[in-house]
This record gives sequence, structure tokens and C-alpha cells, in this order.
Amino acid sequence: MNDALRGLERQLIHPGTKGLALQQPLRQNEIAALGLNVLDGRLSYPVAVLRQSTLDHNIAWMREFVERADALLAPHGKTTMSPQLFQAQLDAGAWAITLATVPQLRVAHRFGVKRVLLANQPVAMADIESLAALLREEADFHAWVLVDSSAGAARLNQVMQQMAPQRRLPVLVELGAQGGRSGVRGADAALELAREIHAASHLSLAGIEGYEGLWVGADRADDLRRVEDLLAQMVELTRRCDAQGLFDGEEILLSAGGSAYFDFVARAFAGLGDTSRPLRRVLRSGCYLTSDHGFYHGLQQEMRTRHDASFRHGLQPALEVWAMVQSRPEPGLALLTLGKRDASYDIDLPRPLSWHRPGETAPRPMRDTRIVKMNDQHAYLELPPEHPLRVGDLVATGISHPCTTFDKWPLMLLTDDHYRVTGAINTFF
Amino acid sequence: MNDALRGLERQLIHPGTKGLALQQPLRQNEIAALGLNVLDGRLSYPVAVLRQSTLDHNIAWMREFVERADALLAPHGKTTMSPQLFQAQLDAGAWAITLATVPQLRVAHRFGVKRVLLANQPVAMADIESLAALLREEADFHAWVLVDSSAGAARLNQVMQQMAPQRRLPVLVELGAQGGRSGVRGADAALELAREIHAASHLSLAGIEGYEGLWVGADRADDLRRVEDLLAQMVELTRRCDAQGLFDGEEILLSAGGSAYFDFVARAFAGLGDTSRPLRRVLRSGCYLTSDHGFYHGLQQEMRTRHDASFRHGLQPALEVWAMVQSRPEPGLALLTLGKRDASYDIDLPRPLSWHRPGETAPRPMRDTRIVKMNDQHAYLELPPEHPLRVGDLVATGISHPCTTFDKWPLMLLTDDHYRVTGAINTFF
Repeated sequence: MNDALRGLERQLIHPGTKGLALQQPLRQNEIAALGLNVLDGRLSYPVAVLRQSTLDHNIAWMREFVERADALLAPHGKTTMSPQLFQAQLDAGAWAITLATVPQLRVAHRFGVKRVLLANQPVAMADIESLAALLREEADFHAWVLVDSSAGAARLNQVMQQMAPQRRLPVLVELGAQGGRSGVRGADAALELAREIHAASHLSLAGIEGYEGLWVGADRADDLRRVEDLLAQMVELTRRCDAQGLFDGEEILLSAGGSAYFDFVARAFAGLGDTSRPLRRVLRSGCYLTSDHGFYHGLQQEMRTRHDASFRHGLQPALEVWAMVQSRPEPGLALLTLGKRDASYDIDLPRPLSWHRPGETAPRPMRDTRIVKMNDQHAYLELPPEHPLRVGDLVATGISHPCTTFDKWPLMLLTDDHYRVTGAINTFF
Repeated sequence: MNDALRGLERQLIHPGTKGLALQQPLRQNEIAALGLNVLDGRLSYPVAVLRQSTLDHNIAWMREFVERADALLAPHGKTTMSPQLFQAQLDAGAWAITLATVPQLRVAHRFGVKRVLLANQPVAMADIESLAALLREEADFHAWVLVDSSAGAARLNQVMQQMAPQRRLPVLVELGAQGGRSGVRGADAALELAREIHAASHLSLAGIEGYEGLWVGADRADDLRRVEDLLAQMVELTRRCDAQGLFDGEEILLSAGGSAYFDFVARAFAGLGDTSRPLRRVLRSGCYLTSDHGFYHGLQQEMRTRHDASFRHGLQPALEVWAMVQSRPEPGLALLTLGKRDASYDIDLPRPLSWHRPGETAPRPMRDTRIVKMNDQHAYLELPPEHPLRVGDLVATGISHPCTTFDKWPLMLLTDDHYRVTGAINTFF
């Protein structure tokens, strides 16, 4: 553990921190000693909790996956923006941490991450300068960035020349697809851009990148075709760049892989034969770490149907948000202390998993209930009129989309399998 | 300014703080001296900015509104969760700050707020204990809370008896409506609950509360009927409780008022005739402070049509989020550095207002463009193929729903009317 991470452990947590009903400030490393248990009803609710054993399972599962795929993992840090989770991923062999923006990259750097993949083209001059300053001052800090336009490449080259002329910034060309997000449209344009980068005085062409995770629509067959198309084009582009001697580094990076199709990515990348120098296949999944009870769970189930028994014990949901029943004003309605400030709502609303009355033995499954609406600070739970749920009972919910739940919790509690609070992690959004 | 607020001014802002492309830590009160201007393109984008003069205007406008309505303002702090903005509201005569949860209440207390209205029934025992501890230890700290069930009242009474027996907790009965959110259904049940509170050893019945802001659907005539119904029932309930001698304090509080119908609230509350003790009409609007360019702007326009010329110079949008063009990969598509981590998306997606090329004189209006989708860190801007917008240009966007934009910015920049950065405020979510 480095000094910055140790600093988090020692920092004061103030009353007002969600989930902990503190009366006095407390050092973060004193949380475990409070002897809290989510089921006791002695916390402030909502509270977001991460099950440590499930995190460990998912980390180990993904480590094994990338090893079998002869790939490297640069997990997308934007999902959690948590230095402690970055460290856990690095400790488990992650090659780098992926980030989406330069401010996120600076957070990772602040907490000791030495190798980052910026999975976007940085455009703000001040952002590029902030990155160049790190490269100038710290020889052991390494960053790779994406480029998808000549204008983008020119901005990077200009700042590097001015601020860090002793280093070349390694760049991956982002290949996009018509109707997609960023990324150069078409292999010929991408090849042209690769040539520009190769020729730029302060950039080096390090590899090829794409993001296949966008295609998750209603027509799954069409989605998969688009995914496979993009991956095939990336492989072909890598081959052509290599044949033309455009790669500048000692290795070639080939990177893709959200959390929906990393199995396809691994297979497609394995199809690239010999290259002039060692090939590094870099997967960037972020949501594998916690998975969820909604969108990513569904994608995982699909992935399992595509594979053999080795996928059976796949990724498991590690994140739950527990709320308390605040009112039951009508027989078929309960209001939970859970709102848009606490759980993701961009893909699905939270899903009730179980309920628990503090003092009783164990949570009971939550059947025939549904969260139908959320306000900023409330969830509307529809339930059968005869359901025994009452004011003060707890409801565990599963979320759909970790990224938009992590960003609502500056501090998240860790628990063991019995919901005993064993510690906390921080997020920096 | 109290010590806690001064502490914020002196705190270190670290590289990685969104909007500021810092290379080194900086004290917050040094931000103004950096001489930044949003239009220069020298920030990190996205950046959320609050225009100081518009905040001042809105604060003054609302102050005048509540004075004319013979009402008090307890602005809902959950909107911004910003201690500096709480203080500005209090300095402008706000009677209290409203909060939604006990953690939020503790944040307000930590930064010097002495009078809070908790516009919910607190249910977690640890939360109630946290509140009772403040009431026990600080004679000059005052809190009012809502109750909508006997179970809720019993929990409060029990904790107050154990922890702060020297004070009675002032309670407002929350009146709800069938199909609504929390709140007792029906005047008779509410009156019965008022009797229980009046009889409780450690609670006092301080008033009646309701929330009319829920009804903002497609059928505006129906919405307004429901709003007027609820308000009329609240007035009648207040009359009945008073006639039965149930109010315990020296005054009677009557509170409602989100940001959609506070004009109706003021009018309905004015209709309550003589009461046995002074009546305090408390409005709780939160979004008036910044308004917006979407949902609340529309509601404000409606409000203006209902009134005379005095509403002409109504509330103005004070909050903008500026993004940079990261890619323009297809003629009709630009990708902006703006995502679900940066701007609200629960009611509408951000609306492009203007665009600007750093170095040119002034922003130009943004016509015929639309943000059609956001990912976590990107916005998809559809625009005419011939539009000159290019990589590195800036786009100003207006948001729809301040509450879900503030919660994405731990630090927001203040600007003058020329977009010069004059300081910053903090939020605590």
C-alpha cells in the first residue's frame, strides 16, 4: 500500500457520510471496529455495500479468463473510480488501469497507478498539458492514448514537443464504425491517420483500438454481426499497419473489450497471426468487477450460453444497495429511502432482492414486488397488499449498471458474506 | 463566514478535480487568481459553471416573492447540497434549510446551519439518534421533522426519550394523497396521527406539511386540480387541528412548495384565516436557485402565464455545463466530452445553447443541433453536415433538473457574466 492509499485509510470520515450514521468524525480505518452489520438496522439507509468475497471471485475469474486468452487486462477504472479497487486489480495482475478522461487519469496517478490507458482522444490543451507534465516529470509513469483525427494528433504532438520533448507519446488509432461513437470511419482513413502518427515528431504509433461494447440493442444477431465486423476490421488494420512498418514501439497493442463481448474480442484477437514484434492483446472491461443484477447480469448469461462449462461459475453481482421502508401509505405501495442519488436508473430501476426485519434471523426473498419509480430520494415499491413489509424493514436491491451507481457513493462499505462491515473504499468522481 | 466554511476555502483541491486541469494541488481560494475563463479553452471540459449574477438575481427574486406572500423560505438543500449556497440563501433571509435525509442534515449542521426542516420521516434508528444527539448537545440547533405513521412517531418518541429527554422534537404531520408519495392518506387519519403526536411525551405537534410538486404530468389541468385539492386539504387539516387544540408550539407551521407551484401554495395558504397562534407559511422550493434550461424553465413559463407583470423577470437559468468537441467522425455527428457523469439525464438530455471557438470573439448560438444520446462520458450531438463545429470547439449546454446535475460535481466553478472564473463552491453528496 502506498502513502496516498494509506492516507485514505487515515482520513477523517465526517457525520453526513451516507450509509454511516456517525455522530462524530471517525478515521476510515476505524470503521471495521464499529462492529456494524447491515442487517442490524443500525446504519443509515440507503447504504451501498460491496461483498468482498464476490469481488475476490470476480477478480480471480477475470484473471483466469485473460490468462487463457493470452491477453492483458487494463480494467476500465471509470466504472468505480476507486483507488483501493484499482490497487486490488493491479495486485491481481492487471497490466494497466484504463481511464476515460485526463481528470480520471490524474486521480489514478495520485493514488499510485503507474500505467494508464486513456481510452479517449484528449482534446483540451490544458488536459494534454497536465498529461505531458506527468510524462516529463516521472520516468516511471506510462500512458497510452487514443487518437481518431488529424486534429487530435496535431494537438498531442504540439504539446508533447513543447512540454515533454524527451518522450514520444504512445498512441493507438481508434477505429470506429458507421453509426457508432468516436473512432475513425473506415480502414483506409485509419491507415492514413496511422501514417500521420508514425510520422509525427513526438508521437509513436503503439497500436490499434476499438470499442465493441456499444452494440447492445434489441436485435442481438445484428449486434453480434457489428461486433464481429469491427473486431475483424481491427485485426486487419493491425496487419496492414504492421506490414507497412508503421508501429514504433517494441510491442504492438491491440485493445478492445467492454463487459458485454470480451469473449468475442479474445477470440478475434487470437486470430491475428504473426506480427513483426510481440502482440499485446489488451481487454478493458470495467463492469466485470462487480457485475450487477440487471443489464450486465443479462449479458453475462448470454456469454455463458456461448461457451463451455468453464464459464459456469461466472461473474457474480458484488454490489447491493440496502434501503429502509419509510412509509407504507397505501396497501400496495411502500416508499423506500432510495432515490436517484443512490442507485443507477439509466438502464433499469433497482430490483428488490430480499427484505429483512432487524432482529429476525435472516433476509427473506422479495417476491411479486417491483420498484416502479424513483425520485431524487425515494423509491416507489409496488407490492401485494397483504405483504408484511412495514416501516423500518430493510429491502436489499440489486442494481443495473455499476458505473452509474458507484458515482453516487464517495464511500462504499465492504462486507463479509454475513453482511458484517469489514471496511470501506473511496471513489473520486 | 464560519470556521467550517473558511475551511473549505483553504482546503487543497487536487489534480483530477473535474473542470480544473490542475498539475499541482491548489487551495480553493486560489482558484480566482488563476485568471481562468471558460471561453479560453484553458480548462478541462466538461466544466459545470454557475453564473454569480444569476444566482443573485434568483435569490433576490425569491426573497421578494416570499415577502409578498407573507411566507418564509426554507429552500430545499438537497438540490445543491452546497454549504456556500446554503449560506447565501440564509444570508438572504431564508428561515431554515430543508433537507431530505439525516446525512444531508448532518452536512448542513457541519457547515453551520442552525435551523433545518427535515422534509421526510426519519426511520433508521441510528439516523434518529444522530439527530437526537445534536438536539441534546446544541441548544441553538433546531430541527423540524415529518411524520406520516404511528410507527414513525413511536420511533422518534422512543429515541428522544432516551437521548434528549429535555427537548420535545417538533413534528409536522405529512398529508399525502392517493396515488402520491409518502404522507397520511385522508384528513381523518391525519387528524388521528396529529392527536398521537400531541399526546406523545417527547414530540410536539408543530404543524402540517404536504408536497404538491409531484404532479407534473401530461394532463396539466388534472395536475393543477390535484395540487389545489391537496393544498385545500392541508389548510382544512390545519384548521381542524387548531380547533382541537393539538398544536403545541408558539406558532403553527404550514409547509409545502416545490419549484413548480409555489404560487398556488402561497395563494392557498393565504386563505387560512385566523389561527390560535401565529401561522408560519413555509415554502421549500429548491430548484429556484439555479432554475434550468428544461423542465423547471418550462414550469416557470407556465407560472408566468398565471400572473401579472411582476413575474416578468422571473427565475433565470444559472447553471451551464460546457463541453468540448472530441470527435466529429461523421458529417452529422459530433462527440462531446459530456456524459452521464456530468449532466442530468433523468428528465431530458442537455440542450446545446451556443458554441465557441477559443480565440474568437464570442460564443455563437447553437441552432439545429440536438444531443440524442449520452454514455457515461460522451454525448452524441447531431448537427447539420455543413456545421463548422470541429475538434476543440466548445459547446455550452443547458440542463434539465438541477438536482441531478449538482450531484455530479463535488466542486463547481462560479463565473461572472463574461465567463471569468471568480471562485468555486463545494457539494456534499
